[in-house]
Amino acid sequence: MRCEIVAVGTELLLGQIIDSNSSWMGEQLALAGIDSHYQTKVGDNQARIVNCIRLALQRSDAVILCGGLGPTQDDITRESIAEVLGVPLRRDQAMAGHIRKLFERRGRRFAENNLRQADLPEGAAFIEQMPGTAPGLICPIGDKVIYAVPGVPHEMRDMISGSILSDLQRRMGVTAVIRSRVLRSWGESESGLAEMLHERIEALDEAGNPTLAFQASGIEGLKIRITAKAATEEAAEALIESEEANVRAIVGDAIFAVDETNMEAAVLELLRERGLTMAALESVTGGLLAARLTEVTGAADVFLGGITVCSDELMFHELGIPEGPIVTAECAKAMATAARDKLGADVGVAVTGVAGPQEKEGHPPGLVFLAVALTDHLEAQQVRLPGDRRRIRQFGVISILNLLRLRLIGSDREAVMR
Amino acid sequence: MRCEIVAVGTELLLGQIIDSNSSWMGEQLALAGIDSHYQTKVGDNQARIVNCIRLALQRSDAVILCGGLGPTQDDITRESIAEVLGVPLRRDQAMAGHIRKLFERRGRRFAENNLRQADLPEGAAFIEQMPGTAPGLICPIGDKVIYAVPGVPHEMRDMISGSILSDLQRRMGVTAVIRSRVLRSWGESESGLAEMLHERIEALDEAGNPTLAFQASGIEGLKIRITAKAATEEAAEALIESEEANVRAIVGDAIFAVDETNMEAAVLELLRERGLTMAALESVTGGLLAARLTEVTGAADVFLGGITVCSDELMFHELGIPEGPIVTAECAKAMATAARDKLGADVGVAVTGVAGPQEKEGHPPGLVFLAVALTDHLEAQQVRLPGDRRRIRQFGVISILNLLRLRLIGSDREAVMR
Repeated sequence: MRCEIVAVGTELLLGQIIDSNSSWMGEQLALAGIDSHYQTKVGDNQARIVNCIRLALQRSDAVILCGGLGPTQDDITRESIAEVLGVPLRRDQAMAGHIRKLFERRGRRFAENNLRQADLPEGAAFIEQMPGTAPGLICPIGDKVIYAVPGVPHEMRDMISGSILSDLQRRMGVTAVIRSRVLRSWGESESGLAEMLHERIEALDEAGNPTLAFQASGIEGLKIRITAKAATEEAAEALIESEEANVRAIVGDAIFAVDETNMEAAVLELLRERGLTMAALESVTGGLLAARLTEVTGAADVFLGGITVCSDELMFHELGIPEGPIVTAECAKAMATAARDKLGADVGVAVTGVAGPQEKEGHPPGLVFLAVALTDHLEAQQVRLPGDRRRIRQFGVISILNLLRLRLIGSDREAVMR
Repeated sequence: MRCEIVAVGTELLLGQIIDSNSSWMGEQLALAGIDSHYQTKVGDNQARIVNCIRLALQRSDAVILCGGLGPTQDDITRESIAEVLGVPLRRDQAMAGHIRKLFERRGRRFAENNLRQADLPEGAAFIEQMPGTAPGLICPIGDKVIYAVPGVPHEMRDMISGSILSDLQRRMGVTAVIRSRVLRSWGESESGLAEMLHERIEALDEAGNPTLAFQASGIEGLKIRITAKAATEEAAEALIESEEANVRAIVGDAIFAVDETNMEAAVLELLRERGLTMAALESVTGGLLAARLTEVTGAADVFLGGITVCSDELMFHELGIPEGPIVTAECAKAMATAARDKLGADVGVAVTGVAGPQEKEGHPPGLVFLAVALTDHLEAQQVRLPGDRRRIRQFGVISILNLLRLRLIGSDREAVMR
């Protein structure tokens, strides 16, 4: 089964928006065992959109169009699909009424052109999930299929995860209900993880259900997807539950979260469950740890605040860290303790080290110390992080969060990908 | 003139890397007046890369391939171009020697397969700029052309800006030297800027050289590109200099930087020139301001540090901000003053407000107060920032930096896009 992605929108071609939607969809298709050989960006031009759809249908079994489903005259994905199918658009009155109600309920002024979103090509159906006001489309054409989803990321994601992946798998000849779950891990290399799970995967391969797949995702960690098929949703979920337990028994504490939960959200949730507050003192990561934590809605319940230290004056005199070299385990420990005590939190964390490009105190870029100060535990860990300044800082953030996570759950693992 | 972009790499299709290179190239092409109607991602598969190149050459006059120029067996962009051209690859001995020397000079172990990077299709030429170890290619085919650049962003950018854009423009019939410069602005809307520059653009349109183009780039601001052609590089640069002065006379202080310099770097440089240090106290932006500043190499010379405040305890008791509502101009001023005085800097800045999704103190998401405390100037500004939590925080960062920039240069403009 091959599925192409066509991202629609002139703003994508002009570079005003980076097309991260296609990347996310590409990852989901790969994890679901569906090949995606070509992914295309095209502008808001009907002839060119039609050209892209036809080409994709020649080369592949399915195409997902993303974007161009809104209410304005620029939004011509519906018209383009109808042209390819050779059918007219018709307005679905039930959907029109639903859209009108959505606007009323949200207290938004209703413009009549919003009803364009209730148009669909003859023979097509709406996608069940509809988190916004633009419904998605499933449009069969012969034994192939065209899907259309909005460009708003969370709307697109709901439709892909909720309907399109399982519809694609059904078309691959799988008639059962298919469900999947992603376990996110940090702390093992891809080869290490493959080795650990080798026997389990071989055993599963014989039975063929459920299945396991890997995906390396940079600072999002290594993802392990469990996919199960069964006659009913309950049975599929039960298979996943049971396989998740198997994988967790093998991989253990390296798994930090499930599905869309990132490391920041996972750590904030752990602290919240335990009734603990947290504070941070950052040197090498320069505020990036605080910034990632506070990106999570509701972070302020748990994360009291942080200090970014770039000057010795601030470090030694204002914060009372003992004078001396700062790229050391001792300094990291003193910083974590200061974060906890100065900011009045239950838990303090610190990151110090060398972001580069220059070396510092004789150490190369990437040499970083992570420290956590809990009520009854003080610890620093030296790590070597890969990449340039930007990557070192990003890896520093995820690594300190992982160290805190491990200690909160009582694990003595090391924090960093080996 | 139409130019397509083909990004090569299986990791792009799998979503392991987001293809931001194509977005950047798309923006450059648009600013240079070159249409780009299709942009494609394809994996490391020769038949499919060849298919993409042939298709692009049918639809357009030029194609830029990005990626697949490295030394490994996966890197097959060179072979794919040779197949399309119907010519063999030959090794360029001068380039081979150059690559070998590059490795020796950097003290890196030399693997023989690096010499694959010295291969080029018969009739093709290397691109002059070569910031890494992989040369780029210019491959004419009939009256069309195939370019190939590495996927490493700064190498790709050097080659596009240094050679490919001017080569494309030459092919558009422009035989002169073409140079361009981007002026980055913040604080005017696109329509406002268009109105201000309307007369100047009309005057330039009559003469046809130099030209002005706009590009809205989100939190990177509105870009104004001046493009000039002349018989010599010196003459083209002189035209740009003179037009830059004209644009600056009209647009004024809204211009914050030139070419690749972003707002953070521009503000750090202004402070450095004036011998001033800076500190920040962040509520709504939660460390993002510190994170963006410290992303700039050498930021620590100027930026002493920052505090992210998420708790009232920290705000009122530790930092001594007067108790009361925190989404106010008074609180913002007290925060900026505390940033300056507590962290021992010459300049303090602060951002407080509502990131959402919930309202706070009766104010809606996007209501934000920015404050700067210089030695002799204390000021707060209320702004309404658009978008969701993520965008509000990003706009907050750029807006406070812009406010500081304006006051440093003695301007009394408002900080935010109107």
